Order: sequence, then structure tokens, then C-alpha cells
Amino acid sequence: MKILHSEPKKDGYRMPAEFAEHEGCILIFPHRRDSWQNGAYAARKAFAEVIDIIARSEQVTVCARYDDYDAARFMLPPQVRVVEMSSDDSWARDVAPTFVTNGTDLRGIDWGFNAWGGLTDGLYFPWDQDNKMARKLCDLLNVDCYDRREFILEGGSIHSDGEGTILTTEACLLSKGRNPQLSREEIEANLRNNLGAEKVLWLPCGIYHDETNEHVDNVCAFTAPGEVVLAWTEDENDHQYAMSKACWDYLSSVTDAKGRQLRVHRLPLPAPVTVTAEECDGLDDMNGEPTRTPGERLAASYVNFYIANQHVVVPQFGDPKDQTALEILQSLFPTRQAVGVYARDILIGGGNIHCITQQIPRASIS
Amino acid sequence: MKILHSEPKKDGYRMPAEFAEHEGCILIFPHRRDSWQNGAYAARKAFAEVIDIIARSEQVTVCARYDDYDAARFMLPPQVRVVEMSSDDSWARDVAPTFVTNGTDLRGIDWGFNAWGGLTDGLYFPWDQDNKMARKLCDLLNVDCYDRREFILEGGSIHSDGEGTILTTEACLLSKGRNPQLSREEIEANLRNNLGAEKVLWLPCGIYHDETNEHVDNVCAFTAPGEVVLAWTEDENDHQYAMSKACWDYLSSVTDAKGRQLRVHRLPLPAPVTVTAEECDGLDDMNGEPTRTPGERLAASYVNFYIANQHVVVPQFGDPKDQTALEILQSLFPTRQAVGVYARDILIGGGNIHCITQQIPRASIS
Repeated sequence: MKILHSEPKKDGYRMPAEFAEHEGCILIFPHRRDSWQNGAYAARKAFAEVIDIIARSEQVTVCARYDDYDAARFMLPPQVRVVEMSSDDSWARDVAPTFVTNGTDLRGIDWGFNAWGGLTDGLYFPWDQDNKMARKLCDLLNVDCYDRREFILEGGSIHSDGEGTILTTEACLLSKGRNPQLSREEIEANLRNNLGAEKVLWLPCGIYHDETNEHVDNVCAFTAPGEVVLAWTEDENDHQYAMSKACWDYLSSVTDAKGRQLRVHRLPLPAPVTVTAEECDGLDDMNGEPTRTPGERLAASYVNFYIANQHVVVPQFGDPKDQTALEILQSLFPTRQAVGVYARDILIGGGNIHCITQQIPRASIS
Repeated sequence: MKILHSEPKKDGYRMPAEFAEHEGCILIFPHRRDSWQNGAYAARKAFAEVIDIIARSEQVTVCARYDDYDAARFMLPPQVRVVEMSSDDSWARDVAPTFVTNGTDLRGIDWGFNAWGGLTDGLYFPWDQDNKMARKLCDLLNVDCYDRREFILEGGSIHSDGEGTILTTEACLLSKGRNPQLSREEIEANLRNNLGAEKVLWLPCGIYHDETNEHVDNVCAFTAPGEVVLAWTEDENDHQYAMSKACWDYLSSVTDAKGRQLRVHRLPLPAPVTVTAEECDGLDDMNGEPTRTPGERLAASYVNFYIANQHVVVPQFGDPKDQTALEILQSLFPTRQAVGVYARDILIGGGNIHCITQQIPRASIS
């Protein structure tokens, strides 16, 4: 693995869309006791269900800490590769490399990771093992790696349409815990130059109470070039209403890198999901403070799906809207099968199916 | 990775000779403080020299414990892959899989490992991380794995000529700390059935004071089909004289699987190498007992070389015989370059260059 200090865009590399063909997918076996209740047993099962679906059409690599390796290897099917790798938590989207391609070769980008806000408003300390994972994964996969550690970014805060447009949120990328020394223009230039893009679309915000400072991957996602889904509620009394409306208004007012107006599909949100006292009882404190309190609202959203080669893996919450969300996504991905996974046990950790995955694109994507 | 319970020989698989083409090589970054003096710094440098030579013609994968990963990654050249993997010590020959091929596909054999003798006369306790490595490496390399954990064997105790002959030592394979419940005939059948061989040649012994119970890879090695080198001393007063002579007499009396008489080349031994008080001072005790005592004789031998695709990497001891050994091996491997590495800092750990390597054969070897 060579460590590169040049710019992907100048080198002819760009980030493909998630709906382009994948070579594989990376996940991390859950373990952290202040993130996953009751020793992560329920989370493991939910992760395993997600992995099982993705592994039907992609080569899945699961990173397990040395003391979780045997449990992971025993639990997961033989076609899934389990490798030993240290981590602080289990969010492959945010700690694995962002992969870029020039149509022949794949390279990884190693962004700086500071647990979603560092000492300002990060979610745990330390985060050193997480921050090392992108480079370790490039080494494992034999791909060269761009050193971008001086720029704090998580994979969940960006989406690419593969045709020059990047989608992000102001709430996250302009937050004080990431790159406060950089102007909005400088941050945008970083996205364009590293992701090989022409235009950055800045949604104002994400999902209410999303502790990542409102990652885009929980509120809005590309389903095709020029098309997105947006998390939506009709309840005007919900905090989320104004937030989704502001995103809708923004998306209605812009064009993408190709000059297209975006088709915006509304994806309903489930009724607010709150954490129970029993669930909180199963979580370790962090520095003597609880990480969740009973009744706390979780950032549940159907937008946090993963687009595998032959499936779309969609979070389900035991909500009447589960089926509606599945049907909408099935209609938007006619060549794939939309499959639901009951994801409350992932959501309790703070994210969802998209957050626990990172696709490895096929290098040969045109 | 599928776990297989069938027999490699019946499945059409066999162990190629080390001098057949390799796809790559596995090593483990040294760390154990009761094996490697002064925090393993000198050992790391010697390992890095060996790795550097092998990496000129093979894809090298180095396993580093999580707290050694950064040091390994920084120290080793970019074309070497570093992966995180737990280990108890650093002898890839003995803990990595033995690879077998059917001419198309590669598979690994996961032997049982008990630190060269388990609770009877093993060298450390516990050995659980070492014993897990073969399977982890098969998983990492995406090759299916034969579960042979019920049979205790280390890679250093066998050599294959790739044409049906296995070379081993009675001293090691019939030792009480490995498979005392099995007869010699049963052990031999295990070798034949797992390594796809027809005939096992049983040298009586190995190198004096070799704490592996005298692994064959320190005393005798195939250099071509029908040809071996044998560690040799002319000093009749040395303990080793009778041992080498017994091996010579045995090798002169047998034929290989193809019915050939063996050509035996004598490879001189260096003058006895003993460990110094200063070196012992740099080693942690194990359970309150020193692992080395000043003046202790080490099992130095030039036979512990590694045959890379384009090089033969040969231990050197600062002995007048260093050059002679290099010249003999150069003449026996005319298509490769014989390169010496000063290996005292590997020898102190108890083995040498062959012991710290494990080749991954090309699956397509005919």
C-alpha cells in the first residue's frame, strides 16, 4: 500500500455512486458496551441478518476485534470473510476508506476521524483505533491510500451520484467539532478535489436528534442520477417537519452537476422511536454518565438503507410505515430486491444499516 | 472460508516443494519479550531485512499484533502488506497453514499447535492465539481450510519434495508432547493423507539443543527432487557429529517416493553459537524462570534458509563458514540469488529464517 499525498481528482479518480456495481462490502462486528445493549448480542444478530443479505451478491469482509473473532467467525456464513482488526465501535461507513476509481484501479481515502466531533461534541474518547481502520483496510485490500487525515470527514456525511454531484449537510460539515479552521468554500473544495466532483449540494440539516450532527445518509440519498429520496413527515407539530421541509425547499431550488433539476421522492418517516428503560439498563455508562436515557428519541429513518448489487437492505421498526417504505424503495430500484431487516437493535447504537456498511466499488466502473 | 473435514490426498491435493513457484509469503512481526531481547528491536530489524529480500519476488503479508501494527507498517516497505492479527510469538512456519494444491485451487491445513510440546515440554503457555492463526490466515486469503487441529504438527517439522516424499525427524514427531496416543504408523499415515504424499523419510534426529525437539528444517532440506542438504560438522568431539552422521547414514540407505537414491550435500555448521549474559539480560523471565542462560548453546544452522522465487535467504552468524555456506547454496540453486542475512538476533528467539516464514505456493503448480 502506497500512501499518496496528491489529489484524487487531479489523478483522475472519483467516487462512484452507491448504486453502481460493488466488488464487496465492509462491516465491523459490534462490541462496544456503551453503544450496544446487553453485550451487543441483539446487535450482532441484526448485523448478521444484514450481512447475510448483502453476502448473496457481494464479497463481504467483517472486521472483528481479536476477542470477538471466534464469535464472529462462528456466527457468520462461510462465504463471509472475517478478519481481525481493532476498532473503537462498529460504524464502517464512517471509519472505513471512501473508495475512488479511475475506471481501472481502486484507491482509498483515509479521512481524519474524531468520533463525530472530537473534544467539542464527539461521542466517545479515545477514537484512535477507529481512526486507523481506513489505512489498515487499504493495506488489507492491497489498494493505495490517500492520506487526508488532516481533514475530518465521515463517509455517512456524503453521498455521490457518480456524475459529479456530492450531497451533504451544513449541520454536519460546518459543525464546530470537525474542521472549524476551514471556511465553507475550503470544505467544499476538499470534497470536490478528493471525490472527483464538480458540485456540492448543501442540505441545511438532517434528522432531528441525530447525534452525528445530522449526517446526510439518514435524511437523503441518491437512488439514480438526478433522483433522490428525502425522509418526510406530514406531522407539522413534529420537530422534523420544518427540517424535512427546509431540505425539500433546498432540493427544489437547485440543479446537479449535470444541470438537472432533481426528482425528489418523499420517503415517510416512522412514528418517533424512543429508547426504553430496559434498553438503557443494558448499556454501560461512559465516564459515569449514561449514554442513553429512557424516553430519548432515536434518529429512526428508512433513508438509512444499503444498496447492494442485487438487494436494497432497508431498516424496519415495527411501524405501519415499514411496508410503505419498502414498496417505495422497491419501485425506485426495479432491478434489485428490497428486503427489510428489523433494525431497532442497530438504531439503539445511534445509526442504521447504511452506517454499518461501506461498499467497495468495482474498479472498472466506467 | 469453508472448514473441511475430508482428506487432502483423497481430494486430490498435495503439498508442493518449497522450491516450486510461490504466490507469496507470510511472516509475523516479533514482539514476545521472553523470546526477543530488548523489546524485539534487533529482531525486528533482522526480520525486516529478510522481508525486504523476499518482497523483491513475492507478495509478503506480515501479521502484526494490534499494538505493533503502526511500528510494523512504518518499518516495512509499501509493497509489503501488513495485517492486524494476534499471536503468541512469531514463528509463521509453525503456526501459519501448510498449503496444498490440486493444480487449480489452494487450500490450507490447520494443524493443532501446542508450542512445541504442550504441557509436557512446550516452550510457553498459553498458545491459544498462535493456534488460531492458521484458520485466520485461510480466511484472510479466501482459501478453504482443512480442520486437522486434533493432530499436533508444526510446519518446521516437515519438508516436501513435491513428488510424493516427506522428510521429518523421529525426535520431533515421536516426541511425548505432541501425539503420544498415535503410533508411528498412524503419524506417518496422517502425513501421507494430509500432504498428498507416498513415502515418509524419518531422519533420526536434528540439531543438538534445538528446543523444537529437533525440527527437520534446521538439519536437512530438499534443494531439488532427489537432492538434499544436510547440516554437517567435521568435529568428532561435538555432540552434533554423531547426530549428523546418523542422518547421513539414514539418507544413504533409503530411496524417495520415486525410487531415487538421494544426493546428499553436506552443508557445514558454524562454530557453536552461545548466548551472552548481555543478551540474557534483555529477555523477560517466563513464570519467574529465565528463558535463556548465559553460555547456553543455540541451534545455529545454515540449513534454516528460505527459498524465495528469485532468492535463497541464508542465515549468517559472523562465522568463517558463512561464505562457504552461501557458495554451496548458490551452486545448488543456480536460478536464484543466494543472499545472506546476519541472523543472530533471530536465532536468539530459538529458530531462524525458515522458521519465521511460510510460503504460499502458486495454486497452478503442476
